[in-house]
Amino acid sequence: MAEEKLPTRAQDFSEWYNQLVIKAQLADYAPVRGCMVVRPYGWALWENIQQALDRRFKATGHQNVAFPMLIPRSFIDKEKSHVEGFSPELAVVTIGGGEELAEPLVIRPTSETIIGHMWSKWIQSYRDLPVLMNQWNSVVRWELRTKLFLRTLEFYWQEGHTAHATREEAEAETRQMLDIYADFAVNDAAIPVIPGRKSDAEKFAGAETTYSIEAMMGDGKALQSGTSHFLGQNFAQAFEVRYLDQTGQLQHCWTTSWGLSTRIIGAIIMVHGDDQGLVLPPKLAPYQAVIVPIFKTDEEKATVIEVARKIKADLAKSEIRVTLDEREGMSPGWKFNDWEMRGVPVRIELGPKDVAKQAAVLARRDRPGREGKISVALGDIVTSVASLLGEIQKSMHDRALAFRQANTHATASKDDLKTAVENGFASAFWCGSPDCEAAIKEETRATMRCIPMDQPADSGPCVYCAKPATSRAIFARAY
Amino acid sequence: MAEEKLPTRAQDFSEWYNQLVIKAQLADYAPVRGCMVVRPYGWALWENIQQALDRRFKATGHQNVAFPMLIPRSFIDKEKSHVEGFSPELAVVTIGGGEELAEPLVIRPTSETIIGHMWSKWIQSYRDLPVLMNQWNSVVRWELRTKLFLRTLEFYWQEGHTAHATREEAEAETRQMLDIYADFAVNDAAIPVIPGRKSDAEKFAGAETTYSIEAMMGDGKALQSGTSHFLGQNFAQAFEVRYLDQTGQLQHCWTTSWGLSTRIIGAIIMVHGDDQGLVLPPKLAPYQAVIVPIFKTDEEKATVIEVARKIKADLAKSEIRVTLDEREGMSPGWKFNDWEMRGVPVRIELGPKDVAKQAAVLARRDRPGREGKISVALGDIVTSVASLLGEIQKSMHDRALAFRQANTHATASKDDLKTAVENGFASAFWCGSPDCEAAIKEETRATMRCIPMDQPADSGPCVYCAKPATSRAIFARAY
Repeated sequence: MAEEKLPTRAQDFSEWYNQLVIKAQLADYAPVRGCMVVRPYGWALWENIQQALDRRFKATGHQNVAFPMLIPRSFIDKEKSHVEGFSPELAVVTIGGGEELAEPLVIRPTSETIIGHMWSKWIQSYRDLPVLMNQWNSVVRWELRTKLFLRTLEFYWQEGHTAHATREEAEAETRQMLDIYADFAVNDAAIPVIPGRKSDAEKFAGAETTYSIEAMMGDGKALQSGTSHFLGQNFAQAFEVRYLDQTGQLQHCWTTSWGLSTRIIGAIIMVHGDDQGLVLPPKLAPYQAVIVPIFKTDEEKATVIEVARKIKADLAKSEIRVTLDEREGMSPGWKFNDWEMRGVPVRIELGPKDVAKQAAVLARRDRPGREGKISVALGDIVTSVASLLGEIQKSMHDRALAFRQANTHATASKDDLKTAVENGFASAFWCGSPDCEAAIKEETRATMRCIPMDQPADSGPCVYCAKPATSRAIFARAY
Repeated sequence: MAEEKLPTRAQDFSEWYNQLVIKAQLADYAPVRGCMVVRPYGWALWENIQQALDRRFKATGHQNVAFPMLIPRSFIDKEKSHVEGFSPELAVVTIGGGEELAEPLVIRPTSETIIGHMWSKWIQSYRDLPVLMNQWNSVVRWELRTKLFLRTLEFYWQEGHTAHATREEAEAETRQMLDIYADFAVNDAAIPVIPGRKSDAEKFAGAETTYSIEAMMGDGKALQSGTSHFLGQNFAQAFEVRYLDQTGQLQHCWTTSWGLSTRIIGAIIMVHGDDQGLVLPPKLAPYQAVIVPIFKTDEEKATVIEVARKIKADLAKSEIRVTLDEREGMSPGWKFNDWEMRGVPVRIELGPKDVAKQAAVLARRDRPGREGKISVALGDIVTSVASLLGEIQKSMHDRALAFRQANTHATASKDDLKTAVENGFASAFWCGSPDCEAAIKEETRATMRCIPMDQPADSGPCVYCAKPATSRAIFARAY
């Protein structure tokens, strides 16, 4: 709750984050190391994220499914890179119903293997393709260093899996889902992102190509916020996912997978939050507006509460997510702080004087203090709140974009790159060599985040080895 | 698919069920024994069920949350009956990240224990109560005999958990949720249910009282289709969930839990299905209507498809879930069978003659053959389909109710009871003794399903021991 202040972001960004997650009641630590409990406020935020994405998935023809969480251990071994990437992170069930299992089972770290296995049964002919599936679930990866929402043993996500007749179709799907993630991040989460391609060192275990959206957090570090993988025929070959083409030839499918997780909640916190707490984008906020009634006497209370309830009903009727804080025993000031901690985009202050002049005060969460306050007529309150929410949504994105631009530096030398990644992104020519990438990581703790899709048509010397390079890459320290 | 016919229900009800689940593409067998893959059509049905329930949960003040799937093994031991009930069914994780764990973890079989643990941190004062939570997830119970949807190692459900200051409030919550399940079953799933109280032998491991809704399947057997538990202070004591009351005294909370699972899909199949396949209630059906175009020449095809697409758009605009079957290479007759197998409530047949007279034929899935067909004017098609869907929904419920009534017998003797449970329910006075209950089970394989909430005010001799009894109970063989 809001009694104790957060450390400021400047003092200790990491501790500001940890305390904010707890105080805003988004999540809490579970009794098992590295696991997380998502509390009602955090889950309501996730449900809004789910809806915003699910709508886009269904509009592009994907159907939801549910594959089981338990996978035979041997499945993981069937794809060479996959087993290397995931073996060290597995949670293994060895006992079931009181007896030792003949074959150990793993809790899915991701579902390519079991889905490949089932597809080999379901897919026979070109008529069965494409297969466009998605599932909302949780997966388990035995992480050592954990942080709520950013990296936990169990985390919530969606994993999309598709199978296609041709390479081109699968590649187009991979790119389409990357675009959908970017569109969601920009338009719903108000987070500007850089869509791009990962290096071989950073790609998914089993992918031919991995794409990601990368966002800059409030401390200048990067957060990978969604990934889309072109899997080539790797899993189709490992699990014999084949189809008869129109000429009667047996062909392996081309597959993709793509995922976005509760990490995005970490991104929302770290991109938009301020020293008072969360600042939530209106499109995803569990409550878009909170009404705080202000009164001293019982008579004032009666008048104010009646009008407040009417405002609540009117806003709700227009599908604005609104709550009225009628809690007893807390002062309006305490409530202001509490809802600021929770990041509600618009606070509606209503006291006897406001009622007398048939008005209310709207206070913007993204602009604390007087600057963000306006008085509006009660008769206009629905349209005023609705248009303010739109303005806040846009303004949050624009501010985050300006911050990223201010903290992204085109760097031509190693020294410049080193300085740039101290508190932001470095954009630099990179020859594509894994050696340069590894050396930069070693010397600066910055990783190659992505090679942005959007590339100016120019070339220059690699920032590390000075050999000719045709692509700029983003380097940054990352979560 | 629909090429091969199902066995009839009369021939082999169990095999009819098993094949139908596969042929309608609701679900499939996973590679791990007893686990299930829910396919897109089955999951779309489950999503509609989720929405119908979630709406009711939220309207009664419940909030969704997510507690982790991994629970320390020792938690299960803290509540005496709970450990007895669940220990034999646990899936145990003993290895994580390549190392043996100091304390084994179990995959949740249900979440009372971990929720109790967290509540003991979160709940301090009467001001924090009631706590009204729900989560949609999957749980794992190591079942020996499994059947798709009815009993699988992993199954999908919602589990509600609430904490209250008083016994009365918790009991009222338990009953409220039972009513919500009954309302959902009757009004959305078109399944008449008997809400009632379970015996001590059949109650939840850790509950003081368990209530359930019981439904009669097409073979006269019972299926428990949702349960609501009054947990007393059992878990609050085991996990020290306490609050300071208004006088400053430390009190244990009173808690409840309640769940409804993918078993309800089994109920929908077995209550409504016929020898041609599924019959889905319109309120939950993934597709409420399917348009099957009929043509021979390319010219006919052009005309028919154009009109069919217009009908689809018009129905979709009125929020009727509709699909148009444009698959190439399958005859209309084949498509009719295929959609009958999948249980779509209304089929819209459209051929060149229909188009010529600006009409279409609506065929009801719940009344196969000519009897269920009507021709409607294209201009009225939206209202015709909408009103037909309402009629089907009602008629499906009424038919299931009539079936249950016809197969439920008031029985006054052991012999009558034995006969009644051969293919239906027996309603009989029961003295309440666990000995009579056990003896009946032993002799008839029928269990005491519930003591219905709705009891005529009379009394009579116990059907088994003839001692005076004041309540009638339902006995039946059950899934």
